Amino acid sequence: MEKTLRIALIGQGSMGRAHSNAYRQVASFYDLPYAVEQSILCGRNPATLTAMAQRWGWRETAADWRDVIARPDIDIVDVAVPNSLHAEIAIAAAQAGKIVFCEKPLANSTVESAAMRDAVSNRPNMVWFNYRRVPAIQLLRSMIDDNRIGPIFHFRAFYLQEWGNDPSRPPNWKTDKAIAGSGVLGDLMSHSLDLALFLNGPIATVQALQRTFSRGREIDDATLVLARFANGSVGTFEATRYATGCRNRNAIEIHGENGAARFDLEDMNRLEFFDAAPPREEQGFRNLLVSANRYWKPGHIVGYEHTFISALGDFLQALADNEPFEPDFESGHRVQLVIDAIARAASSGSTVEVQ
Amino acid sequence: MEKTLRIALIGQGSMGRAHSNAYRQVASFYDLPYAVEQSILCGRNPATLTAMAQRWGWRETAADWRDVIARPDIDIVDVAVPNSLHAEIAIAAAQAGKIVFCEKPLANSTVESAAMRDAVSNRPNMVWFNYRRVPAIQLLRSMIDDNRIGPIFHFRAFYLQEWGNDPSRPPNWKTDKAIAGSGVLGDLMSHSLDLALFLNGPIATVQALQRTFSRGREIDDATLVLARFANGSVGTFEATRYATGCRNRNAIEIHGENGAARFDLEDMNRLEFFDAAPPREEQGFRNLLVSANRYWKPGHIVGYEHTFISALGDFLQALADNEPFEPDFESGHRVQLVIDAIARAASSGSTVEVQ
Amino acid sequence: MEKTLRIALIGQGSMGRAHSNAYRQVASFYDLPYAVEQSILCGRNPATLTAMAQRWGWRETAADWRDVIARPDIDIVDVAVPNSLHAEIAIAAAQAGKIVFCEKPLANSTVESAAMRDAVSNRPNMVWFNYRRVPAIQLLRSMIDDNRIGPIFHFRAFYLQEWGNDPSRPPNWKTDKAIAGSGVLGDLMSHSLDLALFLNGPIATVQALQRTFSRGREIDDATLVLARFANGSVGTFEATRYATGCRNRNAIEIHGENGAARFDLEDMNRLEFFDAAPPREEQGFRNLLVSANRYWKPGHIVGYEHTFISALGDFLQALADNEPFEPDFESGHRVQLVIDAIARAASSGSTVEVQ
Amino acid sequence: MEKTLRIALIGQGSMGRAHSNAYRQVASFYDLPYAVEQSILCGRNPATLTAMAQRWGWRETAADWRDVIARPDIDIVDVAVPNSLHAEIAIAAAQAGKIVFCEKPLANSTVESAAMRDAVSNRPNMVWFNYRRVPAIQLLRSMIDDNRIGPIFHFRAFYLQEWGNDPSRPPNWKTDKAIAGSGVLGDLMSHSLDLALFLNGPIATVQALQRTFSRGREIDDATLVLARFANGSVGTFEATRYATGCRNRNAIEIHGENGAARFDLEDMNRLEFFDAAPPREEQGFRNLLVSANRYWKPGHIVGYEHTFISALGDFLQALADNEPFEPDFESGHRVQLVIDAIARAASSGSTVEVQ
Repeated sequence: MEKTLRIALIGQGSMGRAHSNAYRQVASFYDLPYAVEQSILCGRNPATLTAMAQRWGWRETAADWRDVIARPDIDIVDVAVPNSLHAEIAIAAAQAGKIVFCEKPLANSTVESAAMRDAVSNRPNMVWFNYRRVPAIQLLRSMIDDNRIGPIFHFRAFYLQEWGNDPSRPPNWKTDKAIAGSGVLGDLMSHSLDLALFLNGPIATVQALQRTFSRGREIDDATLVLARFANGSVGTFEATRYATGCRNRNAIEIHGENGAARFDLEDMNRLEFFDAAPPREEQGFRNLLVSANRYWKPGHIVGYEHTFISALGDFLQALADNEPFEPDFESGHRVQLVIDAIARAASSGSTVEVQ
Repeated sequence: MEKTLRIALIGQGSMGRAHSNAYRQVASFYDLPYAVEQSILCGRNPATLTAMAQRWGWRETAADWRDVIARPDIDIVDVAVPNSLHAEIAIAAAQAGKIVFCEKPLANSTVESAAMRDAVSNRPNMVWFNYRRVPAIQLLRSMIDDNRIGPIFHFRAFYLQEWGNDPSRPPNWKTDKAIAGSGVLGDLMSHSLDLALFLNGPIATVQALQRTFSRGREIDDATLVLARFANGSVGTFEATRYATGCRNRNAIEIHGENGAARFDLEDMNRLEFFDAAPPREEQGFRNLLVSANRYWKPGHIVGYEHTFISALGDFLQALADNEPFEPDFESGHRVQLVIDAIARAASSGSTVEVQ
Repeated sequence: MEKTLRIALIGQGSMGRAHSNAYRQVASFYDLPYAVEQSILCGRNPATLTAMAQRWGWRETAADWRDVIARPDIDIVDVAVPNSLHAEIAIAAAQAGKIVFCEKPLANSTVESAAMRDAVSNRPNMVWFNYRRVPAIQLLRSMIDDNRIGPIFHFRAFYLQEWGNDPSRPPNWKTDKAIAGSGVLGDLMSHSLDLALFLNGPIATVQALQRTFSRGREIDDATLVLARFANGSVGTFEATRYATGCRNRNAIEIHGENGAARFDLEDMNRLEFFDAAPPREEQGFRNLLVSANRYWKPGHIVGYEHTFISALGDFLQALADNEPFEPDFESGHRVQLVIDAIARAASSGSTVEVQ
Repeated sequence: MEKTLRIALIGQGSMGRAHSNAYRQVASFYDLPYAVEQSILCGRNPATLTAMAQRWGWRETAADWRDVIARPDIDIVDVAVPNSLHAEIAIAAAQAGKIVFCEKPLANSTVESAAMRDAVSNRPNMVWFNYRRVPAIQLLRSMIDDNRIGPIFHFRAFYLQEWGNDPSRPPNWKTDKAIAGSGVLGDLMSHSLDLALFLNGPIATVQALQRTFSRGREIDDATLVLARFANGSVGTFEATRYATGCRNRNAIEIHGENGAARFDLEDMNRLEFFDAAPPREEQGFRNLLVSANRYWKPGHIVGYEHTFISALGDFLQALADNEPFEPDFESGHRVQLVIDAIARAASSGSTVEVQ
């Protein structure tokens, strides 16, 4: 017997669209014991809310998230609003007994993220660090498990965008410190940090440099980090909105004793893998075309939206199997601890230990 | 007032899934005056038909396409069955007054394709040459229109796959000449030929070489072609299932007086563009990230399935606007004429004029 | 005891410079029992001959090649003049008992090339198909020997240049049919054919298409070929001076049962190698950095000129060891036989057997 | 009238070979009023000195550099010995009135480098930061001059090698702190720092992290740096011998208001250039094939050794024209000041100002 999971989505922005798409698509690509029902879309802009609900298949709309959370016919509350609103909504949803999903970064402070993590401690929960679900990243994780990369020496992550340098672009909430909490540190580098923790384990210490290029902004337009990992490897992280030429270069590189790998989200169906095992003259970075089998035939690529479908599908599969799922709010909180350390390191100019 | 278009899909294979996805997704990404209803999925394998209908959102199922075509509550009949069945179903659907869509290649002979083209002459119709709708290909077409490539010298197309060389792979209808009509010529090169006609105009003459590597097969495992285009340019075409290392390399290259371009479906969000206008030391192939704005934010890539969504969306938009649409059955027939000439050229070893 | 080999170079053009460089450099990178002496530079343009001799280290100059060949103190005669002059000089040099080197293509007809081949039959000789000596090509040849590519299905070669489309460029002897014999067929495709014969064995039949884009020229600006090889594989060849965007794209691709490889002279220190042996999800083209160990440290790349140094060095090593050397005039003649078949195939529009 | 410049080379290692090659080759590619004479090769290993002298065209050999410097018939002393010996020899040569060349890094301390800089203050001098002379780097410098990159936001440099992780490799002087002064900081990152100062101007402050992976070594196997430049841009630098998969990845990336560029020494004939001027849909990194015209024809690539030839050629041209030349000892000293700041930053874990 298939159980119906009734979703309420709080938020009507671009992340709301990506989540909506995932709810609609997941059952075609995953064999799940659940029917997913897009019950309520909740947002504060009535001028666009109905049209979005219709376009993306939501049955009802609502203006106040408190009303939504109070409804007994909702199983999952998905928080896809600006960062400063995450904590209050997610905690209330958890207290109302809901399964809770939340966009990244989980919060604007470690106080908030700890409280959120505690609030969902006995509820299934997920943070939308969707890039863990890129097929190439999943393959890399399994290669690391199989010791194909080996003891790690270096981890390197970039999240480079260019729109900060576009004067025609109006300010939005992502450039408002009171709402976003930070600039690229929370918005972009949080993805890189989640991948780093997922692939290479805890970060011990950080040094950081932040820069605001735009006059009048309070947020970091660029954040640069040096890190020591608990496993002895070292890392560099760089996030910026001023990397002219880079639309959305979310890239990582990892070098170990047995191999190496490179990934770039702009070419997201590829993993470059270097195997140190063959004779030296046959060693080279290998271009693997990785597009998850659950979607289309081999060699037929998937896109951005499939990372959300896979995150949702894997969560629901874990739920059905009563298995733990990551990234959860605990994962989100751990990223927040590193973000916090980076901000302090940038202020002090000195090395800071991650709590 | 929104009109509802009721779809019947004939076929339950991998193309059926890709089309189903397009029907479900199109209204989220296109503003259309139509509601698309997935009315009937028709297929001959009852063991899997119901599950597929449920998974992909079809309201009813049917076993006999004749029953489907006879129903007055169907507006569009979509033919996604093996090639040898295209003509009969599509002609019957047209005669029943339906809008008709058909998978590629349109037919197994020019006799069939001409009859199909004639049958739909007063009905809206489409052939699923979906790769015309790759955003990078659309951009290239507009660059050609803007004379950015200029009088063309060379057109070069590859459709290289490797699965012919996989001994673990069982034969399927694509290797059965009675059903498929040909091997890679109809299956793969038809895509390249449609792109060639779309981007570079009619082909005047061809020479060809075909090769069957697999013992016991009747179909062409590889087809190689030299072509003269009506505009004076020359071209090479190569399709094979024995290109070890190439999952799905559907690639084109074009060189003209003003510029050049390269495209590869395995990297389908990229167009490499060469502009001959800057000073020589600043000339170089330029890596354009092209992912249609109607989907996600710039730099957030789309995948294989979006080519079907875009083909369908553009067709529906043209229908709403009462505008002509291509690729239609006429386009499919023109490809068939070239396929026919190639087969004759390969048999004779001599140059053959395209009719 | 080291023997001195005294060289006379006939020709003062760009190939003369590349050869001169090789004579001067070879002893630093090869351990040879010979001293190489740059004795005489012979050319018909006195205005530039002395300067070139001085710049490139030649002891004497001469105006008439007959005088040079008559001299007893010359061991090697190197023919680097326009194509139509190759046969007479090379044959005379051979008859005078010299070791003979000749630029490619060996001749302008198979009659000439056969006579040249016969003339040197008992003399050490070499044709300057220098691209066989690219380290990546040598590695590929050894991989083929080791059955890493396996029974071959496909061979593909391009030699794409763009200068035909440069109206500012004055005509030169390469566009004069009486001197050059042909256009890109002899000048560019001869290189591709030599690599094909070297890597994939004899060509059995060809079909061809030639095109002259430039008004008033008699030579082929573009030559396109389909080929069947004696080993059952099929091939495409394309040479042109109208491939806008391609400075010097001398590229090959080869697909076999066990693997595949790609090479492009513009990135000449790389070989892309695909190994079909690993599990499918670990298969991908592998980017090998190949820069011969005899030059600099690994990862420190070599350039165009090193192909000449290696050709010369390998020849001299073979001479010292009394071993056969290729490419020799026989190799050059075999290329000429394919060139001849291609020209006849292009004229007739039909399949032609290579003699 | 051509003047003869008589060279004495101190050092018989791999750098000595690269310099020897440059002396022999420079006059073929540069029009200079000098004849370059390879007079004396000086080294302490008699077992190999004579063979190297013969192989590379040196007239005489010597065992003691003091004897060489004392000779009046030497014009240029080229110091290509291990780092700890640079200062004494270079200063003595300058005091003897010689033109002085020195390998990089200039010295093992800022005290040494300042003394060296002072010693040559009235003598022509050069430090072999040869990578400034890569044609692509020269093109980038001219693009920056022409404001094609614009006010700079980001500079990023990598010098990644992998041989540290090769257990079969014996220790050498580069892993001996007493001789090398440091590990990758002086050996590899000095190149990146010179390029940074050349392309982006002075560095104001640094933070750094160093790591020794190999047990028993005292030197840094990896050095990671965050930097603020005087012009307001920020930078990351990373050098390591533990980047499995990277033979010799000496790469830079630069992002400015008007454009961006990328370079990688493993593909040294390429510059990737991004121009922000065209309409957004035509923006993309452009692959420029850059191989200096003074060597071979366009599209015919140059290699590692040409960077030395060009450094020497440009120095001699400047000498002839009585123009200043860079990189000189002052350039080398400025790099040393940054190296020193990095070492102090790594020790302290805090931000350090460059003196």
